[in-house]
Amino acid sequence: MAKASKTSALEETSGVSSAALSNANAIKNIQEKRKLQRSTDDLVSKVIEGNITALSQSITLVESTNRSHLNQANAIIKACLPYANNSVRIGITGVPGVGKSTFIEALGMHLTTQGKKVAVLAVDPSSTLSKGSILGDKTRMEDLVKNEQAFIRPSPSGSSLGGVARKTRETIILCEAAGFDTIIIETVGVGQSEIAVHSMVDFFLLLKLAGAGDELQGIKRGIIEMADAIAINKADGENKKASKMAKSEFKRALHLYPEKESQWQPKVTLCSALHREGIADVWELVETYVSNVKGNGFFEKNRKSQNKFWLLQTIEDRLKSEFFNQSEIKIALEKQLLLVAEGKTTPFAAAENLLKLKNSL
Amino acid sequence: MAKASKTSALEETSGVSSAALSNANAIKNIQEKRKLQRSTDDLVSKVIEGNITALSQSITLVESTNRSHLNQANAIIKACLPYANNSVRIGITGVPGVGKSTFIEALGMHLTTQGKKVAVLAVDPSSTLSKGSILGDKTRMEDLVKNEQAFIRPSPSGSSLGGVARKTRETIILCEAAGFDTIIIETVGVGQSEIAVHSMVDFFLLLKLAGAGDELQGIKRGIIEMADAIAINKADGENKKASKMAKSEFKRALHLYPEKESQWQPKVTLCSALHREGIADVWELVETYVSNVKGNGFFEKNRKSQNKFWLLQTIEDRLKSEFFNQSEIKIALEKQLLLVAEGKTTPFAAAENLLKLKNSL
Repeated sequence: MAKASKTSALEETSGVSSAALSNANAIKNIQEKRKLQRSTDDLVSKVIEGNITALSQSITLVESTNRSHLNQANAIIKACLPYANNSVRIGITGVPGVGKSTFIEALGMHLTTQGKKVAVLAVDPSSTLSKGSILGDKTRMEDLVKNEQAFIRPSPSGSSLGGVARKTRETIILCEAAGFDTIIIETVGVGQSEIAVHSMVDFFLLLKLAGAGDELQGIKRGIIEMADAIAINKADGENKKASKMAKSEFKRALHLYPEKESQWQPKVTLCSALHREGIADVWELVETYVSNVKGNGFFEKNRKSQNKFWLLQTIEDRLKSEFFNQSEIKIALEKQLLLVAEGKTTPFAAAENLLKLKNSL
Repeated sequence: MAKASKTSALEETSGVSSAALSNANAIKNIQEKRKLQRSTDDLVSKVIEGNITALSQSITLVESTNRSHLNQANAIIKACLPYANNSVRIGITGVPGVGKSTFIEALGMHLTTQGKKVAVLAVDPSSTLSKGSILGDKTRMEDLVKNEQAFIRPSPSGSSLGGVARKTRETIILCEAAGFDTIIIETVGVGQSEIAVHSMVDFFLLLKLAGAGDELQGIKRGIIEMADAIAINKADGENKKASKMAKSEFKRALHLYPEKESQWQPKVTLCSALHREGIADVWELVETYVSNVKGNGFFEKNRKSQNKFWLLQTIEDRLKSEFFNQSEIKIALEKQLLLVAEGKTTPFAAAENLLKLKNSL
């Protein structure tokens, strides 16, 4: 109001209509800021109370591409931060057909029965709202979706893994602030998304099926090495024998890798998500792991280095996109690549040229 | 000389002593530039003739940290480029003790006997001139070092892999211009240097020893996947049986990986570098590979994408170092990391802060 009366004083000396207009604008701005502040405060306090509608609304703001939504989302996240972090974050991956949804439903039901609150998120950069995404079809988790202690949210849409990963990391904070003590993040066995998910969870679980002899086939480089446990799903009926064989094969394979920084020796276990068998064993593994790494300090150390990773990664991504998205650089890059291909310059000299061009822009 | 007489004319109107001085400086500059040009032209023509002294001198310029040396080095490389590229580039890696030097000596002698000219380089970012480096002790290759068709150069020193890799890539160009048709690049089985070497060669060879059952032990993530062939060395005497078993184990392991873009199925072979056995077989593999990938277009495609990789990598490295080496950023980064660790901000908000700070500097 002090600002408004100041403007009124100005009015007497410098033309009425424009001053009145700026006066009205100032008041409007203040009102809108207050409204936004009220809405932000309101959302935050409701999220912290565990209100699911407020949680969903806040996540929608995080996922929005609208500038003002993002500003509000940042304010909400900042206010939620002191209430976050008290959870176990579990990444789950596996090729399509391995039974991820059924497994997550079974694990989720097991955990909620124990009184836990479970949030299920997904990272799938290929998904768009129109195309649908993993977790998009909630009917595949029909028990969990009706469960009041569970919260299921499909992958945010987005073309860049960096963008999707950021939104998911921020959604984790919101879910934790809302009292979810177990965060499950599902991803599909494609591209770089496993690495992103591995960098935001405490425990990484690989779901597999018993195959016919070629147990390791089709696993992308490094994924076995990232796993803290491999659960061989559909280990039921006629599949039981093959699953037991697969278990020994994987155990052997896991022993060939160097020791992890967590000092945890990855485990292999059998389960049948459909028959809800072996699910408790998987969870026992997670609990043993968490108690081990909380004991030896790795749990905290890992979360800290994950934070550092995301900080640096965000900066690197932005530096690159700022550089390569300049139209002058785009044109010059094509030219330099051609010169390199023709053997008229080296990649290093071409890079120097582009960096010089950037400094002259 | 035209410039010099102009300066003399100026002398009459504007004070003698300073004009005479600038006159003398201008002449000196021109003379030095001409001298440098003569020295550059001279080195280039000698390198192209295959003069080893000129090649060594040029590599020394490439490896120098002196600005004017680097300018001359760049001019030499540019002039050599049209004469480069006609070679097969082979990367060789393996843990210490596997017999890399003995193997390279055996392979080098085999190739020079066939009339080939072999350059042996190394990538070892941990080496410094004082500490010595792989290939530093040329006595380990006493036949090859005396061989006139061979050229051996230890790893350039440097603390950053990027710097060492760049110098090695440029040295490859110089060696090729000097008529070396086979370039062997040795690296040690540590850190990221395999990835760097893999990105500058046509064929990547992993040397292994037969172990006792744990054939895959100790191989870093991704190295088996990079290999176009695995040669099990020291397959002689009592070791022969274990080596044959290791061969089948590796063959089995290699089959588990997805098909390479080169459409080449990696091979496993036995050799004894000490007894110079199986060396011809290794070379035959390389020749089959090269003929295959020249046939299906991968050879050219791969070199092109390697060039693009190095161009982009050089830019990314520079963008990062320019950003993170600013003292204001260094201080702010530490502060932001602390805030993130204390849960007072998110990695993404912290990154935004640092990027804003950069724009205000």
